[in-house]
Amino acid sequence: MSKQRIAIIGAGPSGMAALRAFTSAQQAGAQIPDIVCYEKQDDWGGQWNYNWRSGIDRHGEPVHSSMYRNLWSNAPKEALEFAEYTFDQHFGRPVSSYPPRAALWDYIDGRVRRSNVKDKVQFSTAVRWVEYNREEDNFTVTVENLKSQTTSSSEFDRVIVATGHFSYPNVPDFKGIETFPGTLHHAHDFRGAEKLADKRVLLIGASYSAEDIGVQAFKMGARAVTMSYRTAPMGYDWPEGMEELPIVDHFDGETVHFSDGQTREFDAVIMCTGYLHKYPFLPSDLALHSRNNIYPGGLYRGVVWQKNPKLFYLGAQDQWFTFNMFDAQAWYVRDLIMGRAELPSAEQRAAHMRSWRTRFQALDGDADEVRFQADYIRDLITATDYPMFDLDEVVRIFLEWKADKKNNILTYRDKPHRSVMTGTMAAEHHTTWLNELDDSLERYLST
Amino acid sequence: MSKQRIAIIGAGPSGMAALRAFTSAQQAGAQIPDIVCYEKQDDWGGQWNYNWRSGIDRHGEPVHSSMYRNLWSNAPKEALEFAEYTFDQHFGRPVSSYPPRAALWDYIDGRVRRSNVKDKVQFSTAVRWVEYNREEDNFTVTVENLKSQTTSSSEFDRVIVATGHFSYPNVPDFKGIETFPGTLHHAHDFRGAEKLADKRVLLIGASYSAEDIGVQAFKMGARAVTMSYRTAPMGYDWPEGMEELPIVDHFDGETVHFSDGQTREFDAVIMCTGYLHKYPFLPSDLALHSRNNIYPGGLYRGVVWQKNPKLFYLGAQDQWFTFNMFDAQAWYVRDLIMGRAELPSAEQRAAHMRSWRTRFQALDGDADEVRFQADYIRDLITATDYPMFDLDEVVRIFLEWKADKKNNILTYRDKPHRSVMTGTMAAEHHTTWLNELDDSLERYLST
Ligand SMILES: Cc1cc2nc3c(=O)[nH]c(=O)nc-3n(C[C@H](O)[C@H](O)[C@H](O)COP(=O)(O)OP(=O)(O)OC[C@H]3O[C@@H](n4cnc5c(N)ncnc54)[C@H](O)[C@@H]3O)c2cc1C
Ligand SMILES: Cc1cc2nc3c(=O)[nH]c(=O)nc-3n(C[C@H](O)[C@H](O)[C@H](O)COP(=O)(O)OP(=O)(O)OC[C@H]3O[C@@H](n4cnc5c(N)ncnc54)[C@H](O)[C@@H]3O)c2cc1C
Ligand SMILES: NC(=O)c1ccc[n+]([C@@H]2O[C@H](COP(=O)([O-])OP(=O)(O)OC[C@H]3O[C@@H](n4cnc5c(N)ncnc54)[C@H](OP(=O)(O)O)[C@@H]3O)[C@@H](O)[C@H]2O)c1
Ligand SMILES: NC(=O)c1ccc[n+]([C@@H]2O[C@H](COP(=O)([O-])OP(=O)(O)OC[C@H]3O[C@@H](n4cnc5c(N)ncnc54)[C@H](OP(=O)(O)O)[C@@H]3O)[C@@H](O)[C@H]2O)c1
Repeated sequence: MSKQRIAIIGAGPSGMAALRAFTSAQQAGAQIPDIVCYEKQDDWGGQWNYNWRSGIDRHGEPVHSSMYRNLWSNAPKEALEFAEYTFDQHFGRPVSSYPPRAALWDYIDGRVRRSNVKDKVQFSTAVRWVEYNREEDNFTVTVENLKSQTTSSSEFDRVIVATGHFSYPNVPDFKGIETFPGTLHHAHDFRGAEKLADKRVLLIGASYSAEDIGVQAFKMGARAVTMSYRTAPMGYDWPEGMEELPIVDHFDGETVHFSDGQTREFDAVIMCTGYLHKYPFLPSDLALHSRNNIYPGGLYRGVVWQKNPKLFYLGAQDQWFTFNMFDAQAWYVRDLIMGRAELPSAEQRAAHMRSWRTRFQALDGDADEVRFQADYIRDLITATDYPMFDLDEVVRIFLEWKADKKNNILTYRDKPHRSVMTGTMAAEHHTTWLNELDDSLERYLST
Repeated sequence: MSKQRIAIIGAGPSGMAALRAFTSAQQAGAQIPDIVCYEKQDDWGGQWNYNWRSGIDRHGEPVHSSMYRNLWSNAPKEALEFAEYTFDQHFGRPVSSYPPRAALWDYIDGRVRRSNVKDKVQFSTAVRWVEYNREEDNFTVTVENLKSQTTSSSEFDRVIVATGHFSYPNVPDFKGIETFPGTLHHAHDFRGAEKLADKRVLLIGASYSAEDIGVQAFKMGARAVTMSYRTAPMGYDWPEGMEELPIVDHFDGETVHFSDGQTREFDAVIMCTGYLHKYPFLPSDLALHSRNNIYPGGLYRGVVWQKNPKLFYLGAQDQWFTFNMFDAQAWYVRDLIMGRAELPSAEQRAAHMRSWRTRFQALDGDADEVRFQADYIRDLITATDYPMFDLDEVVRIFLEWKADKKNNILTYRDKPHRSVMTGTMAAEHHTTWLNELDDSLERYLST
């Protein structure tokens, strides 16, 4: 029998986890399938591969990453640590719990850069269209090499979609918004808070982007920061100069009217209104349609496309856990593909999905969600040889993190946590987050 | 023989010209092919269909239009007038020579809105992929209905590509640009000049976008406007507060160093560096690759894809002439498709292209280009029943326009020109362009 051919679409943390999963089996002596990973950017790292560009990139593709210059991890690194490549291994000494973007990129890159797995990635190559061939029971994947501007098609037995879902902004309309004369864009196109110095800033949304761009703007000297919520305020103990108001009713030039009748004037508006699941390269019967949640419908064990189990998704969930969850998913998908784990029947899969879906729908609040996602990961790891780790302790770290934020949204990043993988206590960063204006790797590692 | 099936991709002015060409043959009693036009926006008008959004639209598609709130025609309307639907017919009275965007949208919409041709357009439908089927000698066109998020495929005998080429920004890199703390984007994402009031603005580029955004910024009270050229300055007699400098060498925070050693500090940078020809739905053997010029290679008579003459492009040229040129192209393509005009052999086509290409390469300066494009249009109209008009007189209008701009870049839009089609002298707008801050249709038509 000829070797299976596997396409991985995207080389962000999820696609890199898939690459790592296969090569670790290979290093342990197994025969692995032929793998091609297509990545439209010119390097791997996905969201973590920062770029100053916004909107459309130099090849005319939508810019993928939504990260900004000043981005620091918003949760402790101890919650995302790989179980089989620790921060101690990477940095050789304790580092702080909330690294800046560049340090996390270095960590995910570090796990794979010394192997030759990068050879399996075709960079600057965008997947344009995927077609399932019923007769051959395989897929035709059509790609464009963005540098040479040539398209080509190849056949694959399985396809792994790892293109993320925080790249296509969800931008609602508001009455009169076209009359707003100031700066107006979505968080996706936000690249740095310096330009908000001295500005009156409105952030629409009440989740991570609003919170973090809000405190970044405060840090960089914004004159006033207003955050507008649709469902419920975040409710942190905001410093003077930051406030939460209910949802925007309408715009009238630079004046914004809120639903409680209050008005404010603004210089800049940033929509922190989340993202769309979008897979423009997939026919609709293969494309996931979901809101951003931790148990999207249609995916057995969160990874197998129920309607066509030769198609897989990685990282399609909303994310409390990130890197180590992608690993658990990638290891399980690898084992299915390599025949090490058995795919249950369609009925069994449906029953499994129903029971998890029922549990998902009964979740009440963030702590419940974190525990659910921990259990989900446990279920996956149990089926693979990925090193099991103390998921309950990670849940505890998440809850502590939430309490820290509640306590002080401006200082929670200064606190060290203990690694679940190595027991190492994190270092304290030399400078408090609020006073640290340089988020380069050099500065982070300087003592 | 069953009816031919024709797909038109895009319902901007070019796609609308194609729709009009077919329906005008039908109104004259001819049997026309089955036509489906796919348009990803929710209305027609292409660039002229203004939207406040930038970057990515509400369906996750790249925003198409590069136009801004304050955009007024940058050339006299007498140069773009349809030969078979005049401004007099549309507005019922003389209007000024440089209408605002909304008035031109109204004009192109007005020609077609009273027929039922809009039924042929599938709006909010993006073409995802086009495949040529060698055996059947036809095309499979795969589209996504963006509202229902469903994909589907249909077969067509011919495909007309009318998707424009001023939508995918060309954004060069400059050393240190990632350190610039202010507002930074391409002209494609520019939506209005009000926010530039009191700002120090850098525009990179030396063509229409730089010129027009520059004078808009001046009009709206920018503190200082610097335009940076790579090849040659525009050389207008800029008012105090506007200047041209050579190309940027590098950025260092808010300080920009120019190649002549001068430096300036800026609050905002807008790249007016042109656009990419990009057809992400076409395999590379069907996709035009060209710089923005008036005689792109590979197209017989500027419209027939030489390598596969069942594929056509409309509006692929850089544009002195616009709406009436798209008409001439659309009428000719219609006649080829309906067998009213004969397609020469591949060799004859190649010879024709070579001779025009030689002439194109010998052009020296703008006046030469305008004459070349007039001759090109004449050649097309001669082959069809589109009403011939006095192209030499339009050339004269273009040259007068150029002289007017040279004379005063702030007042050239106040001048009236005479219609080539009707002999009507344009009205003088009630307010000079520099003092007109309202560019709505209502205001434009108020007397
Ligand atoms: C603003 C922001 C901040 C975040 N901060 C944190 C944080 O602090 N900590 C944390 O743990 N997580 C954070 N996240 C979550 C983040 O999503 C994950 O950390 C992780 O990047 C997800 O990995 P992924 O591989 O699934 O997707 P992505 O990182 O999005 O990678 C997807 C890859 O697919 C490629 N791709 C897309 N389309 C195509 C195509 N058609 N053809 C070829 N390639 C394609 C992209 O170029 C990209 O490289 C943040 C996310 C955002 C948006
Ligand atoms: C900033 C700016 C200012 C301009 N000002 C003037 C002016 O003053 N006077 C003038 O005469 N000309 C002006 N132009 C030139 C303008 O290009 C033409 O007037 C005209 O709009 C070109 O028509 P078109 O139909 O070829 O392309 P477009 O107007 O670009 O229309 C293309 C259409 O294709 C659709 N489309 C694209 N991709 C897809 C897809 N995959 N599936 C389905 N539909 C798709 C788009 O949504 C759009 O509706 C200006 C251009 C720009 C960028
Ligand atoms: N490292 C960091 O510091 C950092 C920074 C930013 C983001 N992130 C990550 O990025 C990801 C995305 O976070 P996100 O905050 O961008 O998206 P998100 O978590 O999906 O939140 C979207 C927000 O937009 C609101 N919203 C949606 N539609 C709206 C509408 N029509 N009107 C008003 N509000 C609307 C939602 O309100 P409802 O609650 O009413 O639905 C919600 O508050 C997360 O994984 C997060 O961890 C990390
Ligand atoms: N109605 C209006 O008022 C209006 C307003 C704006 C635009 N438009 C239309 O929009 C269309 C596009 O015009 P445009 O000006 O955006 O594009 P354009 O005419 O293609 O001009 C592109 C400009 O960018 C410069 N450039 C390209 N790459 C560069 C680089 N790496 N570094 C520095 N400069 C670089 C070019 O310089 P070189 O000369 O050195 O190549 C040129 O000056 C035209 O049809 C125009 O009529 C109309």
